[in-house]
Amino acid sequence: MALRLSDIDPNQRIRKKEAIERLEAAQLQLATIQHEMSEKKLPVILVFEGWDAGGKGGACRRIIEFWNPRSFAIHPVAAPSEEEKLHHYLWRFWRDIPARGKVGIFDRSWYGRVLVERVEKFATKDEWKRAYTEINNFEQTLHDDGYLIIKFFMHISPDEQLRRFQDRENNPLKAWKMTEEDYRNRDKWDDYEAAINDMLQETNTACAPWHVIPGNHKATARTLTAECVLEAIQNRLK
Amino acid sequence: MALRLSDIDPNQRIRKKEAIERLEAAQLQLATIQHEMSEKKLPVILVFEGWDAGGKGGACRRIIEFWNPRSFAIHPVAAPSEEEKLHHYLWRFWRDIPARGKVGIFDRSWYGRVLVERVEKFATKDEWKRAYTEINNFEQTLHDDGYLIIKFFMHISPDEQLRRFQDRENNPLKAWKMTEEDYRNRDKWDDYEAAINDMLQETNTACAPWHVIPGNHKATARTLTAECVLEAIQNRLK
Repeated sequence: MALRLSDIDPNQRIRKKEAIERLEAAQLQLATIQHEMSEKKLPVILVFEGWDAGGKGGACRRIIEFWNPRSFAIHPVAAPSEEEKLHHYLWRFWRDIPARGKVGIFDRSWYGRVLVERVEKFATKDEWKRAYTEINNFEQTLHDDGYLIIKFFMHISPDEQLRRFQDRENNPLKAWKMTEEDYRNRDKWDDYEAAINDMLQETNTACAPWHVIPGNHKATARTLTAECVLEAIQNRLK
Repeated sequence: MALRLSDIDPNQRIRKKEAIERLEAAQLQLATIQHEMSEKKLPVILVFEGWDAGGKGGACRRIIEFWNPRSFAIHPVAAPSEEEKLHHYLWRFWRDIPARGKVGIFDRSWYGRVLVERVEKFATKDEWKRAYTEINNFEQTLHDDGYLIIKFFMHISPDEQLRRFQDRENNPLKAWKMTEEDYRNRDKWDDYEAAINDMLQETNTACAPWHVIPGNHKATARTLTAECVLEAIQNRLK
């Protein structure tokens, strides 16, 4: 299904009061539905990708806020370890695939292969081109086995990103999040945009669809993400 | 590539003296080539399937006999644990895929999905039919990443199997290997033969070929297996 970053205006906005009310309603229902997810042994995989400072962590925290910590695991994905580099890139992700009845949340994911590894040339062109099929097969295999897979791309504008970088630098609670690398990645915005569009083009499948979330306004982004997760789970449990 | 059990006469035989000489020569070369495999970071996957008492263990031991224990791991595959059952059937195998430079040996494997799980109806028809594609994709993915995959089916005749069962029962060192189940499986020889032929038909790919080894004569089987592993490794290192 055709999908491009430019289809979504990152500045799209729900009025703050409405957004907060809707987020709370979605969270209440997510808390309530949890028992049934576990009872029916529904396995769920949430993938969060997005621009640096795009709001992945915040959106993710709102979803799990009222869940039993035993029912989910968050996997923050950083550069692979030496041991991981000695394996196929999907190896470490297979390891963390949740059991039936659990939710696995990937804060960055196997899509690193076609994003950072492509742009930074850690993967050869052959490797990242092949990865689309490998990833589609991987997700299809899990889907056919009953997994619900929901993928988010948190989309913000370059200006908004700059504001957030500066906020982080000035906030002692968040300064640790910033590195030189963030600015270096920012300089490659166009390369990343091309890689993101190719990723959306190649891997927006019926069994594991992408949702590009307008991210400039945090309340909007969090509400839309939580509602999307809730709706997908409700549909699956019907 | 078309391949059926009936293509191979399990009674095929190399004279014992010749077999032993050839096995020793292959073992010597396997010991010698090990350094290069590790140096060039070649990852190798050996799959052993076969009739009960078909000689998987014996053939496997001859291959690793002179290898550094750090360079390989043998994974004996039994029924899945409760935790494993809560995951996709490939999950536990991904976990044990060797790192580059290592050899992973599977004594039974993911092919259980289309053999025992099919015949014993632990998997639905949809599930085991789908598994051929899933397995081919899985092996293709590893092959494309540089893995050398060699698959063996140890083929013996029903009469030879009966002789071996009786030997095991009369040998205090081997009696532990026998269970009621072995005779139950034997009663389903035809069902297993159909499943094996479908497996060979569907998964004998260029990137992960099957080798049906004539197994009635142990020295022959072990020699042919060791020579096959050696040749595949030599070709890959060329």
